[in-house]
Amino acid sequence: MAAQNGACKTVLAGSIAKSLLAEVQEGLKTIDRPPRLYGFLANKDPAARMYADWTAKTCKENGFDFILKEVEREDLEDEIRSANNDDDADGMIVYYPVFDSTRDRTLQWTVNMYKDVEGLSPQLISNMYQNIRFLDPPTNLKKSILPCTPLAVIKILEHLHIYNTFLDYGKRLFGRRITVINRSEVVGRPLAALLANDGAEVYSVDVTGVQHFSRGSGLRNQKHEVRDMEGWGLEQCLPISEVVISGVPGDKYKVPTNLIREGAVCINFSSEKNFNPDVKEKASIYVPAIGKVTIVILLRNLLRIVQNRPSTNAPAQEE
Amino acid sequence: MAAQNGACKTVLAGSIAKSLLAEVQEGLKTIDRPPRLYGFLANKDPAARMYADWTAKTCKENGFDFILKEVEREDLEDEIRSANNDDDADGMIVYYPVFDSTRDRTLQWTVNMYKDVEGLSPQLISNMYQNIRFLDPPTNLKKSILPCTPLAVIKILEHLHIYNTFLDYGKRLFGRRITVINRSEVVGRPLAALLANDGAEVYSVDVTGVQHFSRGSGLRNQKHEVRDMEGWGLEQCLPISEVVISGVPGDKYKVPTNLIREGAVCINFSSEKNFNPDVKEKASIYVPAIGKVTIVILLRNLLRIVQNRPSTNAPAQEE
Repeated sequence: MAAQNGACKTVLAGSIAKSLLAEVQEGLKTIDRPPRLYGFLANKDPAARMYADWTAKTCKENGFDFILKEVEREDLEDEIRSANNDDDADGMIVYYPVFDSTRDRTLQWTVNMYKDVEGLSPQLISNMYQNIRFLDPPTNLKKSILPCTPLAVIKILEHLHIYNTFLDYGKRLFGRRITVINRSEVVGRPLAALLANDGAEVYSVDVTGVQHFSRGSGLRNQKHEVRDMEGWGLEQCLPISEVVISGVPGDKYKVPTNLIREGAVCINFSSEKNFNPDVKEKASIYVPAIGKVTIVILLRNLLRIVQNRPSTNAPAQEE
Repeated sequence: MAAQNGACKTVLAGSIAKSLLAEVQEGLKTIDRPPRLYGFLANKDPAARMYADWTAKTCKENGFDFILKEVEREDLEDEIRSANNDDDADGMIVYYPVFDSTRDRTLQWTVNMYKDVEGLSPQLISNMYQNIRFLDPPTNLKKSILPCTPLAVIKILEHLHIYNTFLDYGKRLFGRRITVINRSEVVGRPLAALLANDGAEVYSVDVTGVQHFSRGSGLRNQKHEVRDMEGWGLEQCLPISEVVISGVPGDKYKVPTNLIREGAVCINFSSEKNFNPDVKEKASIYVPAIGKVTIVILLRNLLRIVQNRPSTNAPAQEE
């Protein structure tokens, strides 16, 4: 039953995080003081608390300053505005959900985009979907900030050589077919867009159906376009996908192993295990969790924000 | 019609040959005198003459000795036997076809396997098909010699990062589907076997039909097995193959571009152009010819033969 010679390579997020951290450490040497991150905790969610503790620990271990601000949720919008104008705060993160409603979206939009380590500001989100990679065209020295979890997945795919560095930057996924199971606004949809913008054909799957994200034949378009795949399901997507990325919340959901293509690369970004153990009999590479990479991306984004800053505390309307 | 932003990268064999030559140059430094190659020309074929001239030029430019021996074809078998026992000849190459019949096979078998730069000796061929990679198991210091053109294709795939070096050696094509059009004994069939032994699922296509070469689910077998794909043709193979390798002789044959998968890697090893120009609208990478790589592989094999030698001028029956 099981592959006798263990062809599947299980890759833990910690090992990937380590090589990214080395890169972040190099970057830290180029700036004059430790970057400072404010973390706003305004709920009683134990997962948010854990994430905050984890941020604190990772910052401390890696030469970043972290200040946790525990506030009442009704005060949070003012607190964010105050941090926007506080030179002490290089960046900030809000531990969501706060109101667990569309009001959280308003909070995201309150964060100054030049301090937004989560990459959730409207301009940053728009850049991401439009495949605009820099904040300062045409100079193109300041890279736009990408949301942490989708970027973590991309950094993992780079680490696994799924991005082909022989191809030109921006086209390194050309020829790849990738299924992303989850189309949330926070992770699944931005991830599908980023992968398609880098050249992949992406099948974005959720309970409502399948959407195809692609830049078209020969990557003829500068950014991805989306079309509905009527009548499609995992039965159609999985057998043709070399990469399967799943992030379905809850412990009930499992990606059907029998549909996964021989030698596929399987990545789970759910906090639960979306893949059955027998995925290792099919996959070439299996990444069971990505949290440790996500947290490094947070630091990387903060570093980038500081590096982007010197010559521009430019107002957002310049974009 | 055409991809507006030129997503396809056309890669010329010369650029790949260059990086392989650098590696060969490094290897030359480890031995005490230039390796000497005997070339046997026993026909009036202008293509063979050209190949011989090309060998001479490449040897000269890269610090190898080359001695061209023009002989009558009826004398060739004796000449080979004599070279087998001639310490002056480190390796030899015969420019085929000589008799253009099964008698050529006898000539191939006359060449001492320890001087066979073409990798056509029965023991070497057997090692290749059996996925036995060394001549001296279990020490495993002396790599078995592989036939030049198939190995050239493999080196090209490594150069293009189709071999994923994140995966373990011997499994770096796991998850890849590759169509090879041509199943000759000299190139197509050994190539399909080599690719499958490295983990790929290979569709080997010729006029008689399609065969599937694979190590089985989860690479469970140590070497590939072959099964006939009843009713299959290019219509089935091409749309699911990320790599298409074609080597059909003659200028009539063209791989149907419409069947090639978006973003495929397309490699031509025919002396004619097997791909239509519009392949560039579909492919991510297109390699129009491979000859310059093949000739470097010849030198690389010769170097390896010399490197393999010191402690064994062992008789073939030891294998």
